[in-house]
Amino acid sequence: MIPLRPNIKHMAGYVPGFQPRDEQRWIKLNTNENPYPPSPQVREAILAELGEDGACLRQYPDPPSAAARAEAAHLYGFDPSWVILANGSDEVLNNLIRAFADAGEEIAYVHPSYSYYATLAEIQGARVRTFALGEGWELLDFPERYAGKLFFLTNPNAPLGFSYPLEFIEELAGRVDGMLVVDEAYADFAEENALALVKKHENVVVTRTLSKSYALAGMRLGLAVARPEVIAALDKIRDHYNLDRLAQAAALAALRDQEYFRAAVEKIRATRDWFSTELRVIDYSVIPSSGNYVFAAPPDRNGKRVYEALFARRILVRYFSDPALSHGLRISIGTREEMEALLNALREIG
Amino acid sequence: MIPLRPNIKHMAGYVPGFQPRDEQRWIKLNTNENPYPPSPQVREAILAELGEDGACLRQYPDPPSAAARAEAAHLYGFDPSWVILANGSDEVLNNLIRAFADAGEEIAYVHPSYSYYATLAEIQGARVRTFALGEGWELLDFPERYAGKLFFLTNPNAPLGFSYPLEFIEELAGRVDGMLVVDEAYADFAEENALALVKKHENVVVTRTLSKSYALAGMRLGLAVARPEVIAALDKIRDHYNLDRLAQAAALAALRDQEYFRAAVEKIRATRDWFSTELRVIDYSVIPSSGNYVFAAPPDRNGKRVYEALFARRILVRYFSDPALSHGLRISIGTREEMEALLNALREIG
Repeated sequence: MIPLRPNIKHMAGYVPGFQPRDEQRWIKLNTNENPYPPSPQVREAILAELGEDGACLRQYPDPPSAAARAEAAHLYGFDPSWVILANGSDEVLNNLIRAFADAGEEIAYVHPSYSYYATLAEIQGARVRTFALGEGWELLDFPERYAGKLFFLTNPNAPLGFSYPLEFIEELAGRVDGMLVVDEAYADFAEENALALVKKHENVVVTRTLSKSYALAGMRLGLAVARPEVIAALDKIRDHYNLDRLAQAAALAALRDQEYFRAAVEKIRATRDWFSTELRVIDYSVIPSSGNYVFAAPPDRNGKRVYEALFARRILVRYFSDPALSHGLRISIGTREEMEALLNALREIG
Repeated sequence: MIPLRPNIKHMAGYVPGFQPRDEQRWIKLNTNENPYPPSPQVREAILAELGEDGACLRQYPDPPSAAARAEAAHLYGFDPSWVILANGSDEVLNNLIRAFADAGEEIAYVHPSYSYYATLAEIQGARVRTFALGEGWELLDFPERYAGKLFFLTNPNAPLGFSYPLEFIEELAGRVDGMLVVDEAYADFAEENALALVKKHENVVVTRTLSKSYALAGMRLGLAVARPEVIAALDKIRDHYNLDRLAQAAALAALRDQEYFRAAVEKIRATRDWFSTELRVIDYSVIPSSGNYVFAAPPDRNGKRVYEALFARRILVRYFSDPALSHGLRISIGTREEMEALLNALREIG
């Protein structure tokens, strides 16, 4: 008998968005990837690290990823002791649960948002509570004081795209006994972010990813900003060499090239806003989005029908069978050309 | 108050071997890195993946690392369902503990071997037991049946370098109620390995790393071979995108180039055997090694004295203050030239 822990044996595992093998033949708007390449400096930095023969790869990377950590800290206006780099923001979400939630203790998040929090909690053996959203995105039944160990607030919300104002997040920080983790995977596409709250409230953690706004999903790079005591705990939990040499070089180069970054983000925001308007013209209801995606529902509120019709045309968007989401689709913002092709398809599909 | 879990708050954290910033000015024989670059195919594969503009990096990697997994499975003679790739073998060791040991349950390992098992158990809240070694490397006080959840056997032993015969490992598999993890980080430098036991005994897991024998410490690549039920559990626990695109390309290329791999391993083994003989000539006691390092003690059995004298000459080796190891040094096998420089220094130091 193979003596697996019961929670591991019985859990389902997380299923990421579909990745077609023959990518070139699809318009791929299902995993919120950036339609533009990363900064050319990223490739240059990787080539420089590799050198003539790749010999650097025989040696271990810098354990704390000090250079990239310092660059991120500088960019966000923190001392490096307030920042940690991770192998994707998923790593830091995982390690936050390991830092704060013992088996049997509770974590919570908003439904709908990023269900991977629940998978990570299951692995830990922690209990999971979700708070549903009201008509105005208020958290239904949220207690005067929330006593769980961690509350994950995805802001901007994914997949819905709306974002909470800072005042709301600050009020929440005061009502959470444990840690408030503001998962800002998409904050670079929004008007504001919660970094200032990390300085004001000791229980606020902000997580970021370089996957979307920096176009580095393929490199697995994320980070967290929090009090030094929290960062020290995360440093103990992470693998001591969590980022390989090329990932560290890529992170540093991407964070440094703010001019390229801002231009790419601005293009995506402009496409998003234009696309949202066009969707409304064909009678879709569209939630105003602060991310690099929109959540939109066709007039008949049958997301599956439209998903399948688009799939048949080799256009991939994200459909969720969850009853809170099945009336619509989450559509990543691609290039202007890709969104025009999608709009044409939607007009045909009706 | 920041409500960290008590075990995280109080644990010390693992300290990896010292990595000097000005590497070029040191002879670095302290972290068992390979003195030769990885296969030239690794750099080629990374360049091919990057393409002209690095655009592939904007898209997520293949979640299961299917190509590299299939290559490893083919190489070791298993179906791919018996293999998992990891961000360094440390990731797979971490996830094995999460798969099998609940908080309060016991794991065990040999002392001395790789103390990171204890760090990983502490993070999980698992209890740790160690078994000391007798004169002939037998496990002292090992029970007729070991009832803990996991027993980690580092084979070849690090830092001592000896290796157990397969018969001993097979006997151990029969005495362990939980899983027997044979950590074969250094097995490519040895005469035999335990892969055949994975097929024979359902509780045997073999872990490997590409850090040492494939010269890819800088890329963080490891793997495990085990029953499909175990691999399925590890697949649920790992981050769904645990290996980035360049790491997957590097793993595939390195595993494919067996000719280069075998030649580099053979050079290191030859240097190791010659170096061991030379050390004995200057009255060091040397444990016959199956790894890419030797554990050796000077005539006065004062490891610290020699470590410091070498450090002053900018030669880095590994000294452990642990009473079981403080009489000697763990010396990584570098190039022939590096080992000659070290021998000259040792002769001077006396």
